[in-house]
Amino acid sequence: MLNNNLYVALLHFPVMNRKEEPIGSALTTIDMHDIARASRTFGVKGFYVITPFEDQADLAQQVIKHWTQGVGGELNPSRKSALELIRVAATFEDAVQGIKEERNQPVVTIATSAKPLEGAIPAVQLRQKLESNASHVLVFGTAWGLAEELIDTCDIKLEPITGPGEYNHLSVRSAASIYLDRITNG
Amino acid sequence: MLNNNLYVALLHFPVMNRKEEPIGSALTTIDMHDIARASRTFGVKGFYVITPFEDQADLAQQVIKHWTQGVGGELNPSRKSALELIRVAATFEDAVQGIKEERNQPVVTIATSAKPLEGAIPAVQLRQKLESNASHVLVFGTAWGLAEELIDTCDIKLEPITGPGEYNHLSVRSAASIYLDRITNG
Repeated sequence: MLNNNLYVALLHFPVMNRKEEPIGSALTTIDMHDIARASRTFGVKGFYVITPFEDQADLAQQVIKHWTQGVGGELNPSRKSALELIRVAATFEDAVQGIKEERNQPVVTIATSAKPLEGAIPAVQLRQKLESNASHVLVFGTAWGLAEELIDTCDIKLEPITGPGEYNHLSVRSAASIYLDRITNG
Repeated sequence: MLNNNLYVALLHFPVMNRKEEPIGSALTTIDMHDIARASRTFGVKGFYVITPFEDQADLAQQVIKHWTQGVGGELNPSRKSALELIRVAATFEDAVQGIKEERNQPVVTIATSAKPLEGAIPAVQLRQKLESNASHVLVFGTAWGLAEELIDTCDIKLEPITGPGEYNHLSVRSAASIYLDRITNG
């Protein structure tokens, strides 16, 4: 990350269920840990956990507090420094606004998906784009992935992560880790 | 995976605690899911979950059964096809023996670590080695990583996954996903 201008967002709304209907999903606290640790490893500036549900936002804040101000952080300082990257927002628009204000730069939004999206680019091509001074936010969906209506609003779409076969069911924790590695080292 | 000859092993003993003392760790079922899904994505032939503790081995078998023969697999066939890769073994030696018998080939053992190991090679170099017909097993440690005594017995050591900074505290789920991606696509 040349300019310290990459952010990650994890959406719990609008995402899809297995029937590809738009839903809101429940928070999975291990997503927060794993993606924060990968974000910290690969030099991400901030990691937004986005949920419109107040009780879920409260839970996210409790987890963050435990590890950044509570006993967790004392026992495990490396976990503390990862979870300090997390901010909680109610909507994707709020997150983009927060990112915009933090660096006072335009925000480029980047959708990820397990499916091929029209006009998608390989993750490694993002590295060049990050040389600009704009802020960039890499967006992940929980459950069965980002809703199409959200993907359609994004400026850039990334190619899915694939192996030698057709199987494309990585966890969002794995997918976020691999995308960040590809952008940084790929 | 040219020859369908790559395996993954996740060890719960001998691993290290935060003080770098050798311990046995508890099973984390989400490790099974995430690493099985990444293994399935990247063409891994088998994923060994290794624990010497009988109650932990029973728990692992219950999870596998739920998703491969039970309701879980009916609801989520893609999860079924991932968890079908998992075999449970009591010791690393047992796993190596199982791998040896399955393909009737010698087994090359490959240690991973978050720390630099003497003589370690980049993950991408493994791709060439996989062109041989030997079976290869990529070994991960839970808790604070593989115990040195185990690493010392391995034939190959891999360089740690790093980003732009010093932070090296990825989850084992993230690390396994990234290593498999680097070996396959890196």
